[in-house]
Parts: sequence; structure tokens; C-alpha cells
Amino acid sequence: MDFKTILYDVQDGILTITLNRPERLNAFNNAMRDEVIAALDAADADDEVKAIIFTGAGRAFCAGADLGGGGDTFNYKPKDPGIPRDGGGLLTLRIFECLKPVISACNGAAVGIGATMQCAMDIRLASENAKYGFVFSKRGIVPEAASSWFLPRVVGISTALEWTFSGRVFPADEARSRGFVRTVYPADELMPAARALAKEFCNETSAVSVAMARQMMWKMLGADHPMEAHQIDSRGVYFTGKSEDAQEGVKSFLEKRPANYPGKVSSDMPEFFPWWEPRDFN
Amino acid sequence: MDFKTILYDVQDGILTITLNRPERLNAFNNAMRDEVIAALDAADADDEVKAIIFTGAGRAFCAGADLGGGGDTFNYKPKDPGIPRDGGGLLTLRIFECLKPVISACNGAAVGIGATMQCAMDIRLASENAKYGFVFSKRGIVPEAASSWFLPRVVGISTALEWTFSGRVFPADEARSRGFVRTVYPADELMPAARALAKEFCNETSAVSVAMARQMMWKMLGADHPMEAHQIDSRGVYFTGKSEDAQEGVKSFLEKRPANYPGKVSSDMPEFFPWWEPRDFN
Amino acid sequence: MDFKTILYDVQDGILTITLNRPERLNAFNNAMRDEVIAALDAADADDEVKAIIFTGAGRAFCAGADLGGGGDTFNYKPKDPGIPRDGGGLLTLRIFECLKPVISACNGAAVGIGATMQCAMDIRLASENAKYGFVFSKRGIVPEAASSWFLPRVVGISTALEWTFSGRVFPADEARSRGFVRTVYPADELMPAARALAKEFCNETSAVSVAMARQMMWKMLGADHPMEAHQIDSRGVYFTGKSEDAQEGVKSFLEKRPANYPGKVSSDMPEFFPWWEPRDFN
Repeated sequence: MDFKTILYDVQDGILTITLNRPERLNAFNNAMRDEVIAALDAADADDEVKAIIFTGAGRAFCAGADLGGGGDTFNYKPKDPGIPRDGGGLLTLRIFECLKPVISACNGAAVGIGATMQCAMDIRLASENAKYGFVFSKRGIVPEAASSWFLPRVVGISTALEWTFSGRVFPADEARSRGFVRTVYPADELMPAARALAKEFCNETSAVSVAMARQMMWKMLGADHPMEAHQIDSRGVYFTGKSEDAQEGVKSFLEKRPANYPGKVSSDMPEFFPWWEPRDFN
Repeated sequence: MDFKTILYDVQDGILTITLNRPERLNAFNNAMRDEVIAALDAADADDEVKAIIFTGAGRAFCAGADLGGGGDTFNYKPKDPGIPRDGGGLLTLRIFECLKPVISACNGAAVGIGATMQCAMDIRLASENAKYGFVFSKRGIVPEAASSWFLPRVVGISTALEWTFSGRVFPADEARSRGFVRTVYPADELMPAARALAKEFCNETSAVSVAMARQMMWKMLGADHPMEAHQIDSRGVYFTGKSEDAQEGVKSFLEKRPANYPGKVSSDMPEFFPWWEPRDFN
Repeated sequence: MDFKTILYDVQDGILTITLNRPERLNAFNNAMRDEVIAALDAADADDEVKAIIFTGAGRAFCAGADLGGGGDTFNYKPKDPGIPRDGGGLLTLRIFECLKPVISACNGAAVGIGATMQCAMDIRLASENAKYGFVFSKRGIVPEAASSWFLPRVVGISTALEWTFSGRVFPADEARSRGFVRTVYPADELMPAARALAKEFCNETSAVSVAMARQMMWKMLGADHPMEAHQIDSRGVYFTGKSEDAQEGVKSFLEKRPANYPGKVSSDMPEFFPWWEPRDFN
């Protein structure tokens, strides 16, 4: 893959996407937005990729929107009529649709979109050097990247409001104690820990099951009644229940041997998937 | 009650439902599904039952779907046209509609439906011997029993995904630290603790108030705006406010004496209950 | 402001609303309901008010509905046809629409509406003397003030049910360990801590950004899909991005100097605000 703002590296089934503008503290710009989305498209289409880790090159994770435009940084002049879509939201909505587990390995400062992009990831790990800031009240704008949907669901409404009202930058330990970060590691143990967790998700698991679980859990997080889940998982059990993966899952368990699932996300998702209507921007 | 796969025992106003196929580690089959649902129907109709405890006979709580069918366990051949409904979901949706508090006293292994059925219960207690597994990715199927709706609401989306991606079996202490289990007890203290908690819910409380609170909290967990709650609780305060229970509640408080509520769930629910439209499967 | 049941005091940009019927333990009545709502209307319209603290006069925060009516306290005789709206819900829905951060500084007993009104506040602090009770099951009525929507979102469904089933009164420390209260302080440190937190929300932050963040987070807490947030925050970034506050936010950051935001909530909210349809009671 030929990217300019990120690194794309697959090893042992795990894709690491490294935000890679270290001279700008990996500040987010339109090129990075497009490249991360393209990387996720590639990852979803590649059955070799079983899990995805995000991290940053150098000492930052992502310092936020590139403020190189000065006071006019957020003063968009859209070429097309209508409301320009927030770039951070295009990214988090793409993560929301992802078919592989997404782990954040936050190695340093994560500010603005650097923090909000992680809200849509499945699990957040951090180095002791990590720090976070939902700094929108200190830039005169609003929380973006659909973080008003994601953040209160991850840390609760009270912490979400405290962090966005104050706009303060806070250390990894506060992020952990408030439930944003699962575990904090010494800097040199962060990537090994992220890879170990990713491994747990793809060793002897059905990739189709993992993709379905990811989509079902995130989508049902917004559903108004458990009947919505019952309608999907009844279909899910019925269609996956006939699959070779289900045969292998039960047989390997009964035979007390490692499982080897033949199913592929690229070709073997249940016929009713995607169940959900796409949501259009309007 | 004449059940083959469960025990149904009412003492001091508390129903204990014991999953009772110990020779199969209380594995879930269609008979158990039907009997548990019938037991809940009986409990809701019986004003002597003020709270419900679920536990398992022998060393397991419930080892999941009975895999006696081998590789074809999940390969349903529906007799009727259409999508066969997931049996776990029929159970959790029935628990969702329950009018009495539901406590899990998890005494041992709770795997697959053994774990997901507990997601719809109000409060989970555990023995030190309990262990849990949302093992669907290791069976080649999908999370069932509407757990994609319940589990992220109980433990948060990140833990829900971690447990379902990995499919790993984990001990009671992890279940507690992640918020799935309220308290872990030595094995011989589990049932006394569950009964003490159940007692707290039915001593000097209005059974109608408890039933209404249960239904309102669970249903509003999916509502998109607090106005929905305001519409129901305005009616709730208005109709229960005229009741003998409300008279007794205020009077006993002012007179500093124990309360004795005459209201019955079987006959005295507010006239507007159920407020909600039933949700049909389609 | 001329209030009879509350005190309204603005200092250093922070409004303190003190429930002030200490001889009745600040019991809630219709006059207090109307005055608190009027106070919030005044606060939202006053650009000098940047944050709001609620506390109680004397030894209680609010002992709940005034039970002076005896057994008929909750037996409303509506003058108008139709269902009378719950007064607690009128208050919490008004807090829900508030444009300034709302902090609870709970100094003593908070029972019934004294507890449920705090569920709609952004952050709850408590004195060691605070205690809480969701006592509806012990009064024969139902949880009110839209608490069936708010409470499970703040503390999770299991704790919400445990507290409302039992109706028990519990100390500040339990409220903290279950996530209802952020921090517990010695009695004489409570108000200074509340003011320090409020200060953090209004020093060098854009009041328009804070108002938008508050509304977006609370409203999106009920939304069924992150696309809803993306539609609002795309507009939010676009409109606020042109503002003087955004210019000042970026410039002050680049110039490493304190920011001074000119934007006012009274006149400078984005043109699309309020985005949401009002919810009518029916």
C-alpha cells in the first residue's frame, strides 16, 4: 500500500496503522483522513487481516487537527453546496462499520480528533506517556467525529461532560480510572500488549463470528429494544449454524483439539448481512 | 409445579429457579427453555412470589447449549417456514417482561446461553467458583439471547467486545471488576446472600411499585428521550398516587411504623399498564 | 431575583441555587418547582452565568416531596382534564435543556425528588454527610422526574434497579462507589470544590462551545446511531468554525497566551440550534 501520512503493516494477521507525520505530531489533515479510510477498506477486504491496531509515530499519537491554517483552520469554504461533512466523523463512522477488531495503542498526546477517533475504537490501551484532551471548548468549536454519541457511551455522560466542558489535557491514569483506557503500560510494553490482545481475538476464533459480533454489538448499542437484537441474532444463529465454522467450532470442542475455521469475512458473511439500512447524511 | 429440567421452589416469598440437569452441567435445551418461561409466567401470576433467584444444581450454573447434537447442534431444520427464533432470546425477552426482581446466583460455569441469559437479569451475584464465557467466536456462531443489546449496556461496549471477540472463559473476579457481577462470595455464602438481597426488595415495599420500577427502568434504557419517561411516570405517579399503597406508604412513614402494602401485582397495576406496544418478531 | 423557596446568588460567573426551606429539610413543593425552573430560565438568558451549582440550606439537600398533605400527598386532583404532569419531570426536563454546566453539591439528605433531580445534573459532588434514597417503593408510587431514563444511564441498570427496588437510604460513599457521585468531600470542603470545578468549566473556555457540548452530549445519549451526531457536529464545526471564538481559540493556542472568547450564548449560538424537535407531552 502506498500511503504518505500513515504506515500500513501486516504481521501475523495483525494490521498496524501508524499515524505517521511525526514532525507535525501526527496532526490530522485531509490526506490522513482519506488514507486511514482507504486503509480500513483494504483491511476489511483482506482476509489475512484479523485485527487492527492504531498507534502513532514518534512521541505523539495525534495532536489533533493540523492548525497550520491558523485562525481559519476550522473556517471551511466548501466547494459544493450544502453542509461540509466533518472529516473526523467520516473516519469514526468508517470505524463503526469495520469488520475486524480495532485496538488503540495510544503512545503519546491524543488531542482533539486524536482523542475522538479513539472513541469509536473497540478497546483503548495506553502508554504511561499518553495524554488526552477533548479540547473543543478551548478552540471555540464543538465536539466532533460523532464523539457526542460515542464518548458518553464509553465513559458515561458525567465524565464526557467534564472532559469536554473543561477542555483540559489529562494523563493516561485518569483516562484509565474513568474507563476510557483499559490498561496503562510502560512505553516499551504498549505495542507487545496490544499485539497480545489482538492475537487473543484471532487465534482459534471464527473471523465471521468476530465480524458479526462487532457489528451486532455496536449497532445494538443504539437500538431501542432487545427485540431488535433478537431479530438479528435469530437470523445469525440460523445462518451461521449451518456453516462449516459452526461444525468446526462444536467438533473441535468435543474433540478437545484446536479449531481451524475455514470461513472468510470476504465471502462467508450471513446472507442477510448487512441487516441494517445504511444511514445517509442529510 | 411439575418440571423436568428445573426446580421451582418458593420460600418466604422468594422463588428459586434451579437449572437442574446436573449430569449435563445444566446444559440448555428446548425443554429447559420452555420450562423456565413457564416458571416465569407462574411467578408473575403468583402474588406470593415477590422476587426470583436463578441458580444451578451441582457444580455448574449452565454449560451452554447442549452439544449432544454434535456438529449439527446449531443447524436447525425448522418445521415451519420463516426464520426460527433463537431459544435464548425467547428466554431473555421473557425475563425482560418480568414483573418481579430477578437475581442471578451463579454457582459455577456459565457458558454461552448460561452467560447470556444472566445479562437480562437485574443483578448478578457469583460464587468464587463461577466462571463465564461468551464463547460464540469459538463455536462459529454469533452472540445470541439478545446479548448484543443487553451485554454492552451492562458492562460497556469495550468489555462486551473483548469478551465476545476472544470467547475466553474468565473467572468471577474479572466478571466483578468489569461490572458484570455485583459481589463474589465464598460458595456456601452465595445463596444466603442472594436471599438477603431478595428480602431487601420485598420487605416493606409495594409490590406494585417494584413491578412498575422494573418495567420502567428496563424499557426506558432503550428510549431516545427523557420525555418518554416523563409521559409514563406522570401517569404512574397519578394512578399509583390514588392507591391504597401510596396512602400506606406516606402514612407509615409519618407514623414511623412498618408499612404493610395491600396492593397486588395480579390486580392492581395502573390502568395504563402495559404502556408499551408489544414488539413483534418479524 | 425575588424567590421564596430558593436562594439565587451569582459570584464570579457561577450561579449557586440553594434550596431554601431548611425548616422543612428543603422539601419540594410546587412553589419550589416553579422557582427553580424560573431560576434556570434566568441563568440561561444571563451571559454572566457560566455555570450552575445546586445545594441545600441547612442540614439537608432536599428531603423529597413535602408530605404535609399526609396520605393524600400524591393523590392529585387535576383542575384541567388530562394527565397532570409530574412536577419532578418538569424540573429534570428543564435541566436537560440547560445551556450551562450544572453541578450538584449535595450537602445532606437527598430523598425522592431530592435524589432524582440530581440525576439530570451533569456532575454530582457530595459531602460526607450526604445520603440518598430512591424511596418510591417505600411510598407506594413509581420512580419520577424521568429518573427511569436518567438513572440507569448514570449508574447502570443493575444499580438503578437495586436502589429503586429496595428504596433504601444509602450513604455518600456507596453513591460514589456506584458512580452516582464523582467525589466525596468533608462538609466544609464541598462548596469550595464545587466552585473550583465550575471555574474549570468557564475559565478560558468558549461559552458557546460549552453550551453546544452540553446539548449535544445529552441529546445524543438517546440517539440510535452515530450518524445523528455526525449530522449535528458537521453543522456545529462548520458554523462555529467561522466564529470569532474559533479564531480566538486557535490564535491563542498558537500564540501561547490566555484566550478571551467574545461569543455569547444569548446571541451567538449556531443558526441551526436548536436542531432537535421539541418533544411534546401527550
